[in-house]
Amino acid sequence: MGKNKQLTSRSEDFSAWYNEIIFRAELADHSPVKGSMVIRPWGYAIWENMQRALDDMFKQTGHQNVYLPLLIPMSFIEKEKEHVEGFKPELVVVTHAGGKELEEALVVRPTSETVVMSMMGKWIQSYRDLPMKLNQWANVMRWELRTRLFLRTSEFLWQEGHTMHANSEEAEEHTQTMLGVYRCFMEDWMAMPPVTGLKSESEKFAGAIKSYSCEAMMQDNKALQAGTSHFLGQNFSRQFDVRFQSAKGKEEYGWNTSWGVSTRLIGGLIMTHGDDMGLILPPKIAPIQVIVIPVKDMENGSVLEKANSICSQLKSQGIRAEVDGRDFINPGSKFYEWERKGVPIRLEIGPRDLESGQVVLVQRIGGKKEIIPQAEAVATMPSRLEQFQDLLLEMAMTRRENNSHRGVTEIGEIKEIMEQSGGFVYTGWSGDPEVEQNIKELTGATLRCLPSEEFQSAKIPTDCIGGKEKSEMEVVWAKAY
Amino acid sequence: MGKNKQLTSRSEDFSAWYNEIIFRAELADHSPVKGSMVIRPWGYAIWENMQRALDDMFKQTGHQNVYLPLLIPMSFIEKEKEHVEGFKPELVVVTHAGGKELEEALVVRPTSETVVMSMMGKWIQSYRDLPMKLNQWANVMRWELRTRLFLRTSEFLWQEGHTMHANSEEAEEHTQTMLGVYRCFMEDWMAMPPVTGLKSESEKFAGAIKSYSCEAMMQDNKALQAGTSHFLGQNFSRQFDVRFQSAKGKEEYGWNTSWGVSTRLIGGLIMTHGDDMGLILPPKIAPIQVIVIPVKDMENGSVLEKANSICSQLKSQGIRAEVDGRDFINPGSKFYEWERKGVPIRLEIGPRDLESGQVVLVQRIGGKKEIIPQAEAVATMPSRLEQFQDLLLEMAMTRRENNSHRGVTEIGEIKEIMEQSGGFVYTGWSGDPEVEQNIKELTGATLRCLPSEEFQSAKIPTDCIGGKEKSEMEVVWAKAY
Repeated sequence: MGKNKQLTSRSEDFSAWYNEIIFRAELADHSPVKGSMVIRPWGYAIWENMQRALDDMFKQTGHQNVYLPLLIPMSFIEKEKEHVEGFKPELVVVTHAGGKELEEALVVRPTSETVVMSMMGKWIQSYRDLPMKLNQWANVMRWELRTRLFLRTSEFLWQEGHTMHANSEEAEEHTQTMLGVYRCFMEDWMAMPPVTGLKSESEKFAGAIKSYSCEAMMQDNKALQAGTSHFLGQNFSRQFDVRFQSAKGKEEYGWNTSWGVSTRLIGGLIMTHGDDMGLILPPKIAPIQVIVIPVKDMENGSVLEKANSICSQLKSQGIRAEVDGRDFINPGSKFYEWERKGVPIRLEIGPRDLESGQVVLVQRIGGKKEIIPQAEAVATMPSRLEQFQDLLLEMAMTRRENNSHRGVTEIGEIKEIMEQSGGFVYTGWSGDPEVEQNIKELTGATLRCLPSEEFQSAKIPTDCIGGKEKSEMEVVWAKAY
Repeated sequence: MGKNKQLTSRSEDFSAWYNEIIFRAELADHSPVKGSMVIRPWGYAIWENMQRALDDMFKQTGHQNVYLPLLIPMSFIEKEKEHVEGFKPELVVVTHAGGKELEEALVVRPTSETVVMSMMGKWIQSYRDLPMKLNQWANVMRWELRTRLFLRTSEFLWQEGHTMHANSEEAEEHTQTMLGVYRCFMEDWMAMPPVTGLKSESEKFAGAIKSYSCEAMMQDNKALQAGTSHFLGQNFSRQFDVRFQSAKGKEEYGWNTSWGVSTRLIGGLIMTHGDDMGLILPPKIAPIQVIVIPVKDMENGSVLEKANSICSQLKSQGIRAEVDGRDFINPGSKFYEWERKGVPIRLEIGPRDLESGQVVLVQRIGGKKEIIPQAEAVATMPSRLEQFQDLLLEMAMTRRENNSHRGVTEIGEIKEIMEQSGGFVYTGWSGDPEVEQNIKELTGATLRCLPSEEFQSAKIPTDCIGGKEKSEMEVVWAKAY
């Protein structure tokens, strides 16, 4: 395959396009173990930028990072009844260690609620120790046979937040706060605006009282569940005996929450912004925001020198800029490579530009070439990057609204929408799980969430989409990853 | 146990002192799975500061971060003969996943040379792809029955660097470069000056041609191997068929290196600087560098207000400062707590200081109280923290030199030193492994390394410590963790 060969187009085969971007932009690779992935430097650098932004937000909201053990006793997983039912089919199990069979099998963590609870039980004595707000950045495993890089792999990287509170209200509020943090991050950093809302009973986290999620619309109009935040009530604290002495001197069980986002976000990023040339990265999380490419006569070195000098000026403004000075690749191939990798802005500098003091500036969206003075390119770069970021969000927001169908009242209409364009369909719902199951079977769409207030339709539906009953709530249907 | 109860003193029982610090400074805890640890917020914040400093140094030396899979096929581990012999007894093995027995057992990575090699084989075609310099931050597992928190646990966190080069010289040089990076980090950031050098054949990494290490002297005069850097030659590239086309058009096997440091460094930090009151943190990696404590009359709030204002002024200078405003703990208990946790400098501010514009400044070393103007405390803080950092390094350096014994020529003398004070003993050695084994049995000391040039004695020993043969090299003996 030639390195500059065109990608399969999105309209031709969205799924093939997605896979090709991952390999051609060198984001990730298959590993020798089926279902696991290797995250390559370009992909990992994106993840590091996401981590840094999220971690700052977690610390600003009072969380502290910890590290919890990878292996969990099988008996722990089995303590919370719904939790084990949800996770058992996907467990990865260690039976031997140090050359011997273990007395009790150990599970590679699929998530860490159980271990956190057992530790909080030791650390929490009184209401003065609450709230306890912890987070960890870690790898987890949930065995998968049908995998897709970033979207569904047996091992993935994530953060899992775990907090314990003195009462139900505070814990519920915190569940919402973290949902809001995720939404902010997805909008402000990833330019991937999600619809947030409550999960239905059938889709909630195994062991939760309530689960909330961020549902982002991909370019194929399918939903990606991009982050979740759970109110766990006292389900886990009762099983793991996490009690505290209240201000009134009473022994009570704690109320807890958990919430997480994972490397799945990189999949969302690709499918939100990529085009038929490759990846497009929002400047705020792009490992390289501006790539400077010296064109022609590398021999005497003065073009390269100028490229380096412009790059330094950009860097001194806090911009992540790099010069691609490789002498064994022609400029055209470099253009394609950095386009594929999604770098927002490219500067080309050639021998003629040395005399004229100009530079060619090309934006990754639109691809229009501007020839402008070098000093202007440097001076306007921060605002250009900001505009680029804003434009991506605006495009994604417009696309989401254009593909949202409100006021739908017939299952047949959902089916038609799903067969033709896909998208988010808003309807009324009585809360009857049979209706939910029925729509899933008939249309392929699942109930994504009960949208938060700001996403609800101006005109609240009065009838359940099932036809027979009154609507108790508005819900969003979509095909999903 | 009263929270303010004194620690066991170092002279009384160094090992008990070490364990008590970990729990009382809330650095880590035992996990429900034997041999694994939970790293608590204070310990993890120290690790994050270490990570950030090291990661910057890795990036400055041209490395890129990646993420490699947790699980490795057993057949991979078995490919390199010495590698499997070294690691087999400690392997943690997954036999079941997704409810079924696996066809091939998977190993939880003890280290990732084998997987990196299999991937580099796919990614590297020609000399233009070299050097390839990768690093990952990850968890690894080596089953241990006799564990000590941070020093020896079944699971630990680390970074592992893996690089591939076009020739032997470059790879060897890079092994040394990274050894140098580790030494710099340990000296400049941790104030823990190591002796660097080459490992003997019996102590080198399973699969390496040469292993180098950093050996730091703890306060009980034992050595801690705090970081290693390995030249792996073509051992792994031959087994995993990592070939590249050279500049001359020939197919050749790559030359590689690997190197790592782990959460063991936190153990080293405790045992290098801690005293009988608790931990002492070098300012450069202290999560809190200055703790501001309001004393007395919290009621009217003006003391707390002044504390907050001083804290903001410190923060605006880039100092990691915090106010301990908890109203349910008395100031004395706060003093003890932050002393235990090793915060370098404490500021106390009371009602009288409001009028006088003064503040009490107490350094974690020496404990002398100074009463100085608030403005002076703020203005001099950066240089005070620098001096604190320098003093710690100087103290550790002096202690190391005072407990280094050079020019020793008799095994009996090593034995005597080990029985009395311990320390690093420099002698000549012929290279005979029998002498090495013999000394280990007789004295309890092991051959730590063949010291790098800058650590060698002015007078090079002429005779092997074994007595019969000529010395071929100088070596360092010490009891070790």
